[in-house]
Amino acid sequence: MSVEIRSAAASDLPAMMVLVRELAEYERLSHIVIATEASFEAALFGERPTAEALVAIADGEMVGYAIYFQNFSTFVGRAGIYLEDLYVRPKRRGAGIGKNLLSRVAQITVERQCQRLEWVVLDWNEPSIQFYKSLGAEPLDEWTIYRMAPEAIAKLAGA
Amino acid sequence: MSVEIRSAAASDLPAMMVLVRELAEYERLSHIVIATEASFEAALFGERPTAEALVAIADGEMVGYAIYFQNFSTFVGRAGIYLEDLYVRPKRRGAGIGKNLLSRVAQITVERQCQRLEWVVLDWNEPSIQFYKSLGAEPLDEWTIYRMAPEAIAKLAGA
Repeated sequence: MSVEIRSAAASDLPAMMVLVRELAEYERLSHIVIATEASFEAALFGERPTAEALVAIADGEMVGYAIYFQNFSTFVGRAGIYLEDLYVRPKRRGAGIGKNLLSRVAQITVERQCQRLEWVVLDWNEPSIQFYKSLGAEPLDEWTIYRMAPEAIAKLAGA
Repeated sequence: MSVEIRSAAASDLPAMMVLVRELAEYERLSHIVIATEASFEAALFGERPTAEALVAIADGEMVGYAIYFQNFSTFVGRAGIYLEDLYVRPKRRGAGIGKNLLSRVAQITVERQCQRLEWVVLDWNEPSIQFYKSLGAEPLDEWTIYRMAPEAIAKLAGA
């Protein structure tokens, strides 16, 4: 099986949405998915894109994808790369496709002279944790993410 | 004391760097600070800015700042706001300046029609945790951040 890793195009969106829903199911987060093809098109290919995507193609089929964007570290003083998603369809796992996608993201990180590549992992996702650790990623156990939902944001905005 | 919250300008950078170093000291992370005024200028005011900043001014002096950028959620399908830093000088705390800065960030989040406002907090930073929870922020305890340092990135990029 030969696998091609390339930048996503707008014509990839229908297939990509199927994989996004598969990932949400795997992460037990289907109930929070409100993304649509239109919102993805605006975010990835609109006038002011906020994210970029790579897709993995095997036998003419999309078998995985990676979505990433540039973040910023105050202490480093410059942009880094944040990997929002890395997904490979279950039937295609074990063939190095996830590593191929992540390796391409690492190349982009180097090309842009970024110092850091970061992402988050669900604590129970042991296969992913082992995979990431095998590549030299380190858990930032001292930090916890906090999130405000729309109601709390609106209340604070009016304070 | 009247406090003005406004967007940062390039002329704010020298004062802002002093506060960035204070925050790093508070977070016991001074050893990882490699940011310079030049790298900040490029990131905030260059051709392709990667972050935005607000400053709090009281009695003609910078007493706090917030740095944020747009991130992206696959499941939401659109951009959110990520708060990289929120800092108020120790002598000025307890006067609502942190809340004023965060409220302005919440307003920007609403203006841009973002669904989420997120940031990370050090687990031992109890005063900040209590402050954020009082505003309705929720910890995402199930997630852990992973980071790759430049050596691991370079190795993976060549794989």
